[in-house]
Amino acid sequence: MILIFRTDAAEAEIQNALRKIESLGYTPHLSRGAVKTICGVTGDDRAISEAEFDQLPGVESVLRVLKPYKLASREFHPDATRVEVNGVSIGPGTFLVVAGPCSVESEEQAESTAALLASLGLRFIRGGAFKPRSSPYSFQGLGEQGLEILSSAARRHGLAVVTEIMSEHDVELMSGYADVFQVGARNMQNFALLRALGEARAPVLLKRSMMGTIEELLLSAEYIMKGGNSRVILCERGIRTFETETRNTLDIGAIPAIKRLSHLPILVDPSHATGDWRYVPSASLASLAAGADGIIVEVHPNPTEAKSDGRQSLTFAHFTSLLERLRAMAPVMEVQVR
Amino acid sequence: MILIFRTDAAEAEIQNALRKIESLGYTPHLSRGAVKTICGVTGDDRAISEAEFDQLPGVESVLRVLKPYKLASREFHPDATRVEVNGVSIGPGTFLVVAGPCSVESEEQAESTAALLASLGLRFIRGGAFKPRSSPYSFQGLGEQGLEILSSAARRHGLAVVTEIMSEHDVELMSGYADVFQVGARNMQNFALLRALGEARAPVLLKRSMMGTIEELLLSAEYIMKGGNSRVILCERGIRTFETETRNTLDIGAIPAIKRLSHLPILVDPSHATGDWRYVPSASLASLAAGADGIIVEVHPNPTEAKSDGRQSLTFAHFTSLLERLRAMAPVMEVQVR
Amino acid sequence: MILIFRTDAAEAEIQNALRKIESLGYTPHLSRGAVKTICGVTGDDRAISEAEFDQLPGVESVLRVLKPYKLASREFHPDATRVEVNGVSIGPGTFLVVAGPCSVESEEQAESTAALLASLGLRFIRGGAFKPRSSPYSFQGLGEQGLEILSSAARRHGLAVVTEIMSEHDVELMSGYADVFQVGARNMQNFALLRALGEARAPVLLKRSMMGTIEELLLSAEYIMKGGNSRVILCERGIRTFETETRNTLDIGAIPAIKRLSHLPILVDPSHATGDWRYVPSASLASLAAGADGIIVEVHPNPTEAKSDGRQSLTFAHFTSLLERLRAMAPVMEVQVR
Amino acid sequence: MILIFRTDAAEAEIQNALRKIESLGYTPHLSRGAVKTICGVTGDDRAISEAEFDQLPGVESVLRVLKPYKLASREFHPDATRVEVNGVSIGPGTFLVVAGPCSVESEEQAESTAALLASLGLRFIRGGAFKPRSSPYSFQGLGEQGLEILSSAARRHGLAVVTEIMSEHDVELMSGYADVFQVGARNMQNFALLRALGEARAPVLLKRSMMGTIEELLLSAEYIMKGGNSRVILCERGIRTFETETRNTLDIGAIPAIKRLSHLPILVDPSHATGDWRYVPSASLASLAAGADGIIVEVHPNPTEAKSDGRQSLTFAHFTSLLERLRAMAPVMEVQVR
Repeated sequence: MILIFRTDAAEAEIQNALRKIESLGYTPHLSRGAVKTICGVTGDDRAISEAEFDQLPGVESVLRVLKPYKLASREFHPDATRVEVNGVSIGPGTFLVVAGPCSVESEEQAESTAALLASLGLRFIRGGAFKPRSSPYSFQGLGEQGLEILSSAARRHGLAVVTEIMSEHDVELMSGYADVFQVGARNMQNFALLRALGEARAPVLLKRSMMGTIEELLLSAEYIMKGGNSRVILCERGIRTFETETRNTLDIGAIPAIKRLSHLPILVDPSHATGDWRYVPSASLASLAAGADGIIVEVHPNPTEAKSDGRQSLTFAHFTSLLERLRAMAPVMEVQVR
Repeated sequence: MILIFRTDAAEAEIQNALRKIESLGYTPHLSRGAVKTICGVTGDDRAISEAEFDQLPGVESVLRVLKPYKLASREFHPDATRVEVNGVSIGPGTFLVVAGPCSVESEEQAESTAALLASLGLRFIRGGAFKPRSSPYSFQGLGEQGLEILSSAARRHGLAVVTEIMSEHDVELMSGYADVFQVGARNMQNFALLRALGEARAPVLLKRSMMGTIEELLLSAEYIMKGGNSRVILCERGIRTFETETRNTLDIGAIPAIKRLSHLPILVDPSHATGDWRYVPSASLASLAAGADGIIVEVHPNPTEAKSDGRQSLTFAHFTSLLERLRAMAPVMEVQVR
Repeated sequence: MILIFRTDAAEAEIQNALRKIESLGYTPHLSRGAVKTICGVTGDDRAISEAEFDQLPGVESVLRVLKPYKLASREFHPDATRVEVNGVSIGPGTFLVVAGPCSVESEEQAESTAALLASLGLRFIRGGAFKPRSSPYSFQGLGEQGLEILSSAARRHGLAVVTEIMSEHDVELMSGYADVFQVGARNMQNFALLRALGEARAPVLLKRSMMGTIEELLLSAEYIMKGGNSRVILCERGIRTFETETRNTLDIGAIPAIKRLSHLPILVDPSHATGDWRYVPSASLASLAAGADGIIVEVHPNPTEAKSDGRQSLTFAHFTSLLERLRAMAPVMEVQVR
Repeated sequence: MILIFRTDAAEAEIQNALRKIESLGYTPHLSRGAVKTICGVTGDDRAISEAEFDQLPGVESVLRVLKPYKLASREFHPDATRVEVNGVSIGPGTFLVVAGPCSVESEEQAESTAALLASLGLRFIRGGAFKPRSSPYSFQGLGEQGLEILSSAARRHGLAVVTEIMSEHDVELMSGYADVFQVGARNMQNFALLRALGEARAPVLLKRSMMGTIEELLLSAEYIMKGGNSRVILCERGIRTFETETRNTLDIGAIPAIKRLSHLPILVDPSHATGDWRYVPSASLASLAAGADGIIVEVHPNPTEAKSDGRQSLTFAHFTSLLERLRAMAPVMEVQVR
């Protein structure tokens, strides 16, 4: 951390700040410039906050030098992490395709989708049983019944299940059904849930909040990892901006940025990011080209009858066609679509 | 709802859409224009989503006419709601001042703050025991011990306690300590928590998410009210924008907008909205002038020693001075500062 | 400026950076920490950009310590600036009310508005003759004819004219009509225009762009001041965010922030900021309470017939009522409404 | 357009609105629903604004059905437009690569860059002579001398020149040097400039503002096309959001959205969109995969010595490597890199 003093800071204020740095166990390095006096704080200062200093008298601002996360940082873990699930190594060399309906609605729907995915050589299915909905009047999911339907269909076809967990108290219940716990965008900073998943053994798919910075996403991953669970897969799903033609704005630049800052795998959710099935293929191909480790995409046997998110769901035909295009592009990116 | 058809929509597609409207129990009103064909859906369509229609073949887009919330809407509840707590009627005629530290840190801190507030004639104290922090390395609050400290100090001075609840499973535990349950910005769409508070009897202070629209805030209030708890107080606390000089951007225009759209009281949190104690007095006075029903503001006996948010906390002297200015302005706004 | 080196920076890279600092005429202050090595650059480095350093090998990032503006900064000009126009001293002690139609449309409209303002004791009228419109199919203003109409009406009633200039080549033409040149939000970074106004003598009302940071606003003011014209009045008019209930988001926190960072007067445009006449009174009162030096507000004899922005224009009756409320609040803020 | 009436609208207010619709030459279609009364306006209503109606008494809101642009719309021009420049057909089948320095700095710089591009088989060079800079203290470009240097180098190597125009009065001067006039992000709504380019014959590269919606970008294209110049090439260059790890946020979803809404070609500027040379290759490949018609990218013989934007400029080696990767991916997208 670096403290910048006010131009009119009194000497006593500067000395007071130096004492505070020392009292916290760090070493101050003062530098008096022609215009500004600054003071570096040496040592690993991740455990302290800028707030320790920036309200001290005489201090104008405090700049952080070290990233506030550690376990999620590539700086201390240069090799990319691979998360193994259902025989697939998620990470370098693989482009994972997770597909399925927004909500589990019926056995027929789950079965036909699982059969399609297996026939296309894929290994993962997604589907929601507990649905976070902005309005209390919207369909809220089938709950545990939905989990049973989804996991039965998945088992019949050898697929792993990715499904959303909305409360820390569902960990035990869901463990019987889910292979990967998905933390939805609205729960990226539900710290009680993150702590519970840090103690669980299952892999976690952590979605970025629509208002979350890349740094906050990595700090949320840090919560899970600090608890002992290092099997974290990140997911970019679009951020909220002023543009309304797409439901959210897919932050494609976050892919190379996260790859540089962290060693964790990162998927893209092109369905929520764009909110329009017509834009999903372009967003999916762009994700592959940008270096993402995969996509999680909404597919429905009959999108016009979907109970949620029909607008952004691909039909089986469109999904099959997209998969062909991804497989055609994969060799250029030196990955295998799984 | 209104369906807009594509210019090239086939007649069969239009007829199909009409059948779908009827199958859901609504009446379609078709209007064929020179350029566009549109179809109104009559009836109270709040229970259905645009998604029912916007992925139908031939449909270009779907526009919603009715607001998606009802219990929180002023349209169906023209008179402003008053929430009674600790002898204060929160709503028209009152400008509520809730003050206290970001985090409860010690008995001395809680006692001195409570004594100050009581001496100034105020009736509410705020303070956090369970703290949502972006980083797992930041101070996470004293937990139940913090609740005990805060409520003891409050009781000694006749103050009501406003404190944050982070999980639906803390409702019972906290009921012994809290007079008002605060839902923090990060939990505005923690639907499990909202549902639990809908069943509780205590008043709820619902903070707007930093990326939540006004409509989403009112939908979250609707979750609580639909559960049977109509004692909801809203809180604007700044939204996330591109500007970084302030921690968030206080959306002052949301005050008259929410007053028009809803009958619920609305407070402002000038501390989180600006993130800088130097801006808190201006933001507080502006909130009063804009028609807010009160503020919830961070005060600390020694901000430079605060374990969190010291930068945005007022000293006792600054707070006392702000209160004087609010009281001077209150008659102009025809409210009484409580 | 402070350079932060990468953890794995080679010694040769560090030495290379030190040489570059010296070659630009500054003195480097190296500090080798346990985790990070950093280097301060002493001297007034406003004339150089972070880009000089941040692409050097071994450099991770560059932090700026000094604000990049100087003439507009309060640090070097502690006293608030007053801009004198038409017998009014814009700045401390005054709350300026500039009112008038979005577009000048007819002599009757201009005359009735000017008569109203004069009868209410005000000294300024606003009105657009050259209109920046997103669509080429929208009304583009009356041009020079509009200027004539507006300035004639203003002269008859002793009012000063505030009107928008859209091109540097209109400075001469407009000098005969305008007392204050308004730079619209879309032109905040039209540098050719800013330079031309730097050479002109007339006061400039510089509006913040809907996506401009406070720092960029002050840098645009710096362009004008560097050219020799220090009569700059700033104007906050709402920024673009994700919220759509209001047309823009009034950044009320920018008022105390700009007051702290700069010595220039700052007005608020509550009409564009909210986009809805029903929210304009609250936004105006909030601006006064937040410490703004005035407002510039849209008023129209018959808003439902306005050629532009009717939705956000006040009627004469609503405006008169607002003015009464502002005058009632002014003594609390120790200003006089002019 | 569709008018939504307030629930409590009086019959006289409804009739008044109907008369206003008719007075403007359109036909009203009233529909009285159980909850809401609405009224469609039939006819091509692009020439009128929502503001005609939304301030009428009794009207709650006005929804637009038709897009406000016409010449730029794909609805009325289903085939994609190709813009021919220097033997390259910009549009379907081509992936255009425009490269060069942010600013023209010297003959050596321009010559070496032009030689590189020609040796790689490319046909376009970019470079700025008039530079829009936020700070008046930053390098402002070499002006006409820069244009001479750039166009001489281009001519020697058979390249077309893309360069930024900042004022409508430079059209004639620049016509001798520029093959494509670039309108920078800050000038997307400089309507005087757009009108002047509508009358010019040269192709225009119109960059999206960092605060511009897709609709506003297409409306700005409409200004140019309405003036008679249909050779417009759009450019997505990143929008401003809350994320700061990248300089802007590349809106990759805008590519398929613009392709659907408009027939004009669209390029991506990955340099400004990300602001970091390390992210430029990923963003470039993603643009190709998303269906963009090309990129305009910053390349510099020695980025660490660049007078502007060095941080986001590729070295010759990195650029050459990127080009190889684009050429490897091009067949999958069925385009040819030019």
